[in-house]
Amino acid sequence: MSMPDCVGGGDGDTVLPAVTQKTPQTIVMKFGGTSVKDLDRIRSVAQKVQTERRKGRHVAVVVSAMSGVTNQMVQYCHGLDPEADACEYDAVVASGEQVTSGLLAIALGAIGVPARSFQGWQVPLLTDEAHGCAAIERVDGRAVKECLEQGIVPVMAGFQGVDKAQRIATLGRGGSDTSAVALAAAIGADQCDIYTDVDGIYTTDPRIVKRAKRLERITYEEMLELASVGAKVLQTRSVGLAMRENVKVRVLSSFTETDDSSGTLVVEEDDSVEKELVAGIAYSQDDAKITIRNLPDEPGISAAIFGPLSGAGVNVDMIVQSIGVDHSTNMTFTVSKKEEARACALLEGMKSEIRYGELTTSRDVVKISVVGVGMRSNTGVAAKMFRTLAERGINIQVISTSEIKISVLIDAEYTELAMRALHTAYGLDAKKED
Amino acid sequence: MSMPDCVGGGDGDTVLPAVTQKTPQTIVMKFGGTSVKDLDRIRSVAQKVQTERRKGRHVAVVVSAMSGVTNQMVQYCHGLDPEADACEYDAVVASGEQVTSGLLAIALGAIGVPARSFQGWQVPLLTDEAHGCAAIERVDGRAVKECLEQGIVPVMAGFQGVDKAQRIATLGRGGSDTSAVALAAAIGADQCDIYTDVDGIYTTDPRIVKRAKRLERITYEEMLELASVGAKVLQTRSVGLAMRENVKVRVLSSFTETDDSSGTLVVEEDDSVEKELVAGIAYSQDDAKITIRNLPDEPGISAAIFGPLSGAGVNVDMIVQSIGVDHSTNMTFTVSKKEEARACALLEGMKSEIRYGELTTSRDVVKISVVGVGMRSNTGVAAKMFRTLAERGINIQVISTSEIKISVLIDAEYTELAMRALHTAYGLDAKKED
Repeated sequence: MSMPDCVGGGDGDTVLPAVTQKTPQTIVMKFGGTSVKDLDRIRSVAQKVQTERRKGRHVAVVVSAMSGVTNQMVQYCHGLDPEADACEYDAVVASGEQVTSGLLAIALGAIGVPARSFQGWQVPLLTDEAHGCAAIERVDGRAVKECLEQGIVPVMAGFQGVDKAQRIATLGRGGSDTSAVALAAAIGADQCDIYTDVDGIYTTDPRIVKRAKRLERITYEEMLELASVGAKVLQTRSVGLAMRENVKVRVLSSFTETDDSSGTLVVEEDDSVEKELVAGIAYSQDDAKITIRNLPDEPGISAAIFGPLSGAGVNVDMIVQSIGVDHSTNMTFTVSKKEEARACALLEGMKSEIRYGELTTSRDVVKISVVGVGMRSNTGVAAKMFRTLAERGINIQVISTSEIKISVLIDAEYTELAMRALHTAYGLDAKKED
Repeated sequence: MSMPDCVGGGDGDTVLPAVTQKTPQTIVMKFGGTSVKDLDRIRSVAQKVQTERRKGRHVAVVVSAMSGVTNQMVQYCHGLDPEADACEYDAVVASGEQVTSGLLAIALGAIGVPARSFQGWQVPLLTDEAHGCAAIERVDGRAVKECLEQGIVPVMAGFQGVDKAQRIATLGRGGSDTSAVALAAAIGADQCDIYTDVDGIYTTDPRIVKRAKRLERITYEEMLELASVGAKVLQTRSVGLAMRENVKVRVLSSFTETDDSSGTLVVEEDDSVEKELVAGIAYSQDDAKITIRNLPDEPGISAAIFGPLSGAGVNVDMIVQSIGVDHSTNMTFTVSKKEEARACALLEGMKSEIRYGELTTSRDVVKISVVGVGMRSNTGVAAKMFRTLAERGINIQVISTSEIKISVLIDAEYTELAMRALHTAYGLDAKKED
């Protein structure tokens, strides 16, 4: 397949003019809520679609609801019943994407681009029955492909599908990214462009580190790890799906002029040319730290604590065990701030059974993670992180690692200091700001 | 079938308590936009549904969109393209009913009434392909009936269906009444209750004639004629469908406490006990009068005028031909004010061909109609109308009649005077106001 080198492999081929390509490139363009928030924005999206078509590409579009609309619908549902039936909740909240898919088709028609909307049930995009956060089971790409072959732009309502019983099901917040990747896989698209309100994936949060720089490429695994530890640009599920289905994803801004080299490309590791040691640094303040002191140092003590927590649906993230006084042991771990109260109540109730000394908690902690596929073959990444933090007098409370990620828990007041120091230490600072 | 006599035939049976009935009555309750305009109103509708269920009835519900929402959607569509694709327009505007059907199902669940929403495509309610004002071809009542048999309240989104190609189609403004009647026919419901913002059908407009009174019953044909000449309570199409399918329709208020004797019942002529000469008096200011003077009095002159008008889609309503000077003839007729300009332009263009003298128009006219099945067997109705108007010095410009209706075109400034005089003359004045 012929692909422009700026978005595809690294083969160095120059791009043939689109009109001479035998098989036109097929892309999926996905637009989020702020990109379709009013008629002017919808017209602007239509222009972007037309621009891609003029490059000779086949374009399928996926849209979110106008920003604010889904929240309004959720409020309606919960206003009537905080425990609203999930099927009905889905019928209500899916309406927002129905509106924008129809409106974008109209806006495209108005500038001479033939288009038609597809609701989830019309595609059909089949889901399981987990209403409210359903998983996609199968996307039947035939009708959408037929449209493309006829030169019509299919505009699919994101975030929604239909279950076996023909009830509308939604994919959970941010689900439109997943819809877009799933559609791209189903129709064999060459790329899935996610238009959003930022112009790509950054080495870290530019609000904290001014010298953060936009990445041209990032691997699926790095993106997955970054999304899982606080980076909010792409929904984790959509990245996982893109990795499994090998869909090239690009993140770019819908608010600026863009070309084929804009944004950040999320690709397989082999496609990533620049093998940086560390791709990005993320932080999360969503965790609370729980410490249990003076536990009996017995076999099975971890299971006695974490078994019941897991049974109660509390997700435990980072764990460290340390030696206490008199052959006792201490256990420190993190849970989501939302689940902290539930976890503590459970542990308090088990105090006599487990025979621990003291339970303390802290919410003034931040988890900082460095992520990069390069650390697979380089052992110095962790050492550099610990040394950099130590030089600034920052105490590491808990450490956890995965194959391509190192996370540390530190006092929240060192957040900015730690982020900037690490960004510089790993050589990520943007040159233009030097 | 056992029916309470207050809503059914005139057999004088006393009503058995619902719980002892072997076959529970099945009713369709339809709620318009003002009845579901916010969460409080939706909760109130849920209460009304529960009240009916407690009478031992099976209840299916049809809802409109929250008032204002459909207009907002139409504005969005036309804001992007005044000639928006009708399929896409339908996908957008049908979203309002999707929201209220889901919300009402949630509100019912919240008070312990099992319920589920049905979109048009889920029923399915099949339509033709005339998007924007589609006609219902078939309603598959099986899924809705299955719900009822399981004690679940089906809540159908009104105004919408699905065509053969699985595209969403809407039935045109006010189409939810038609949806409700069609559903009632499909599931063999005993009655279709249309809840609206008035408490029934009146002998005439109470804003003009204070002594207007609510009718307990009216026949389909009378309702059809009244709807066609200006009474706006029920959509004409829904009444026609009810007549063809023999669905008993009741119009009542969703803003007051109601019981089985509330509102107005629209029934077959045989079911109507009180055979009044005149059921109601309606008026319409939607028409313009066009007069063509000094036409050659030749055979075929009517065809020469009305053929082209009809070909151009201009609906001509009342027509009168009168003798002019020198063997010429004059032609006066009415068209909708919206079509007046188009009609005149067409006629001006044909001036040399038809060889008429002068074309004049007037918008200061009102069409007043008296409607009643009683006039089939009573020839005095028309005479009484002409005499009553003559006694007040009101000149009749054009007359048209049907089997159960007489309409006259008069100067608009006599509207109130004529309406009140006729209301009294036909003995329609409410006694309590005497």
